[in-house]
Amino acid sequence: MTSIPRDQWYVAAYGAEIGHDLFTRTVCGESILFWRTRDGAVTAVPDRCVHRRFPLSQAPSRLVDDQVVCGYHGFTYDAGGRCVAVPGQSRIPRTARLLPYPVVEQDSFVWVFIGDRAKAEASRIPRAPWLVSPDHTTVAGMEPLRARYSLLVDNLLDLSHETYLHGGYIGTPEVAATPITTAVDEQAGIVHVSRHIDDAECPPFYAKSTGLRGRIARWQDIEYTPPCLYLLHSRIAPVGSVPGPDGADPDAFHVEVVYAITPETEHSTHDFWCVARDFALGDEEVSTFLAESNRTVVLQDVEALNVLEQVIATEPAGCQELSINIDTGGLAARRLLQRLCAAS
Amino acid sequence: MTSIPRDQWYVAAYGAEIGHDLFTRTVCGESILFWRTRDGAVTAVPDRCVHRRFPLSQAPSRLVDDQVVCGYHGFTYDAGGRCVAVPGQSRIPRTARLLPYPVVEQDSFVWVFIGDRAKAEASRIPRAPWLVSPDHTTVAGMEPLRARYSLLVDNLLDLSHETYLHGGYIGTPEVAATPITTAVDEQAGIVHVSRHIDDAECPPFYAKSTGLRGRIARWQDIEYTPPCLYLLHSRIAPVGSVPGPDGADPDAFHVEVVYAITPETEHSTHDFWCVARDFALGDEEVSTFLAESNRTVVLQDVEALNVLEQVIATEPAGCQELSINIDTGGLAARRLLQRLCAAS
Amino acid sequence: MTSIPRDQWYVAAYGAEIGHDLFTRTVCGESILFWRTRDGAVTAVPDRCVHRRFPLSQAPSRLVDDQVVCGYHGFTYDAGGRCVAVPGQSRIPRTARLLPYPVVEQDSFVWVFIGDRAKAEASRIPRAPWLVSPDHTTVAGMEPLRARYSLLVDNLLDLSHETYLHGGYIGTPEVAATPITTAVDEQAGIVHVSRHIDDAECPPFYAKSTGLRGRIARWQDIEYTPPCLYLLHSRIAPVGSVPGPDGADPDAFHVEVVYAITPETEHSTHDFWCVARDFALGDEEVSTFLAESNRTVVLQDVEALNVLEQVIATEPAGCQELSINIDTGGLAARRLLQRLCAAS
Repeated sequence: MTSIPRDQWYVAAYGAEIGHDLFTRTVCGESILFWRTRDGAVTAVPDRCVHRRFPLSQAPSRLVDDQVVCGYHGFTYDAGGRCVAVPGQSRIPRTARLLPYPVVEQDSFVWVFIGDRAKAEASRIPRAPWLVSPDHTTVAGMEPLRARYSLLVDNLLDLSHETYLHGGYIGTPEVAATPITTAVDEQAGIVHVSRHIDDAECPPFYAKSTGLRGRIARWQDIEYTPPCLYLLHSRIAPVGSVPGPDGADPDAFHVEVVYAITPETEHSTHDFWCVARDFALGDEEVSTFLAESNRTVVLQDVEALNVLEQVIATEPAGCQELSINIDTGGLAARRLLQRLCAAS
Repeated sequence: MTSIPRDQWYVAAYGAEIGHDLFTRTVCGESILFWRTRDGAVTAVPDRCVHRRFPLSQAPSRLVDDQVVCGYHGFTYDAGGRCVAVPGQSRIPRTARLLPYPVVEQDSFVWVFIGDRAKAEASRIPRAPWLVSPDHTTVAGMEPLRARYSLLVDNLLDLSHETYLHGGYIGTPEVAATPITTAVDEQAGIVHVSRHIDDAECPPFYAKSTGLRGRIARWQDIEYTPPCLYLLHSRIAPVGSVPGPDGADPDAFHVEVVYAITPETEHSTHDFWCVARDFALGDEEVSTFLAESNRTVVLQDVEALNVLEQVIATEPAGCQELSINIDTGGLAARRLLQRLCAAS
Repeated sequence: MTSIPRDQWYVAAYGAEIGHDLFTRTVCGESILFWRTRDGAVTAVPDRCVHRRFPLSQAPSRLVDDQVVCGYHGFTYDAGGRCVAVPGQSRIPRTARLLPYPVVEQDSFVWVFIGDRAKAEASRIPRAPWLVSPDHTTVAGMEPLRARYSLLVDNLLDLSHETYLHGGYIGTPEVAATPITTAVDEQAGIVHVSRHIDDAECPPFYAKSTGLRGRIARWQDIEYTPPCLYLLHSRIAPVGSVPGPDGADPDAFHVEVVYAITPETEHSTHDFWCVARDFALGDEEVSTFLAESNRTVVLQDVEALNVLEQVIATEPAGCQELSINIDTGGLAARRLLQRLCAAS
């Protein structure tokens, strides 16, 4: 059994990555070819010619109008994956067909369904509306991770690591010191982890972007919908400020940190990250600062998780972990992921 | 079971590669040491000292007259593989012996027999006489391929890929568009694939080398003797020109393209290529052009096949291929290769 | 079963390598973290946080006084391996413990015990007192070897290879030509190999360091205590000179060559080497010459053994070796090592 759940939606790319060009990305071990047809829709088909396996993304394969021509022997497919030409004969075998992947473009992401295509429609895609909302400004990126996706899930579900791994960027002593509360919505399959810090040092990430001086209230509300979408609702406010009974929260700064955690293979991961803010909307300087800072933080995680992957690859069998209170979110996430794996 | 037939002759090198120096090459997974003795014969023995496995091709191992001295402990062998000296004692163990490989130098190639040496003599070595004929001029080379040899067999048996992978060099639309005829000589174990194009664009490879202007008749007659020797009899002539009843063919240009397909390991291959022509025999400019063009074409294949090897290495189990008419030659070759594997 | 004996002492480092900094080295496949506490003792604990496996030697992990703080989530351990702080809670789980390795610092080496810690005390650590004796001057180093440790054992137990692999440095024809005598102390588990050459060319290594001119008597007395410690008592003297009945040997030069052979993994080795001499004690020029020469010789071995490791990794199953008289020491060593493996 694989440790990657099938019959699930995964983020394959940002919509902005896919134009009228051949684009390839491996998702859950499957090489997928993408292009945007002239009507604007994203096509996703296996990146492998049915004839002799040549990758359709590999030059001299090329896109001609809305058809892709294999660079090895010229098998030609339309945007629906149907083969429309083969060399040396006019009859096209009925089975010459690339089975398209279900695709949904939503919230700036291109989602693909991996597994039994018949189950795609009934499967809910979680939302991250801030990424395309006019009330927010978003910076985003993707870093390749040479580690299994579950290490990134562990990492993001337990933010006490900010204090140590990201000290000087987003971590301060109060993060690790403050207990969390964890709740699992078994029905919806969502893990919630909350840490509300009433009085904390303001790390540079937020001090420079918000302009807040002095100590802050810092709330971290995590919402993870396995396997792929991770939301961190981050609230920064002057100490003592709380939202009004109607939800109004004029003194606070809200940042929606979104990760899409997409397995590339059993041992590598696409680490999509986005930072959406509800302040300084048109301020390019703030955008540049947040993009650079968050990428630095992500790369600190990437470096640490790449090391962990090597530790796991070389350690003797039977090595144990030890879990404490900070791990309740991560352990809940593992349990939901195992349930998804068992069901697929 | 391996996918590499044993009890077969394979091209290990060009004769010109082997002089009075230690030379090593791996053939079918076996490391072989070659040198040319002072009487001009090529010696081939395992490239591994019987004592502690040290490669006899590895410095400070060295050739002293017609004997090789191991660089680790000084075991010394004559050209017949007999050990003639060991350190610290005068008695030489009877089993201290490198078992020589059967070697035949022929048609510019050094052939070695891999498998049961007793079967070598009865096993026919296919010929490529043009490579050493005074009526032809030959250019040649060898490119290392990081792919299994069967991918190169597939490639060379189906030349419709010239149109796509080698467009602008040797491919034109008519190649892929023209059907082939395939015949298998079960007795001799040879696959024949023919494509006679009556009226085609002349690709640069032939236009520049022959000086022909305008459209051409282009004949491709393949003769593959598994596992190693592939011949492509290529005939280029003005449209309408045909050979006379006596075989005379004065208006045509003939090129004998020869490949020796030698497995290095299960996943890598020595791709020997030769282009022998019966025109412009002394013309260095034509030789240089054909050598550079053919090497470019071979490297296009190498790049594509290296990619295919990676595709196979990483694809999920159970991936299928789809074959059409152009593949009849390749499928016949696979069948003969399987027969050879099963017999060995 | 592994080919690396457990329940054994191994040299992990020179004492001089370990200061008040985090230092990591893998011994017998186990990643070990070392540091020297403020009282001067060397601490050795597993280099893996009990929480989520993060290497404690990996930045931003750091040493604070005599405690190490994990750079991922801040688990903190004292020099005895006890966890003294975890994030987000004051209760520390009883099992949060790094089990320390038995450590002995002796003869310039840091020895660690690999295996069942209860067996450490009863297990004898072999000595190399010259390395810290005021009557000797020592040069030393360590070279990483990408080969299994048994190849280095083979190498050092059969010095006839000096003639071929180290010709021009420490090898002369007489080494390989002179028979050895081998004796095994089964009780103590020690292999002795002796080669006394009465009349030999003096190789540069000894000619330049001793100033001896002309031919020499050269004695090589090996004492190997598996798995880790190898001693070569090397005696160089004018031809005809012998030690007196009381052991006095005023005309001779004595060099104690010490190797510690420590498996890093199944396929890599730490090759510690030391050269202790009883002459020219304060002569820096001689020290520099011997250090550079011996390192060159060790690197010649490393290059050869790295090649052998690759030979073994790629050779067909069932490849044989052939042993002769020079191999009696190496074969005895293999037998003792197998006995240690079987017992562990």
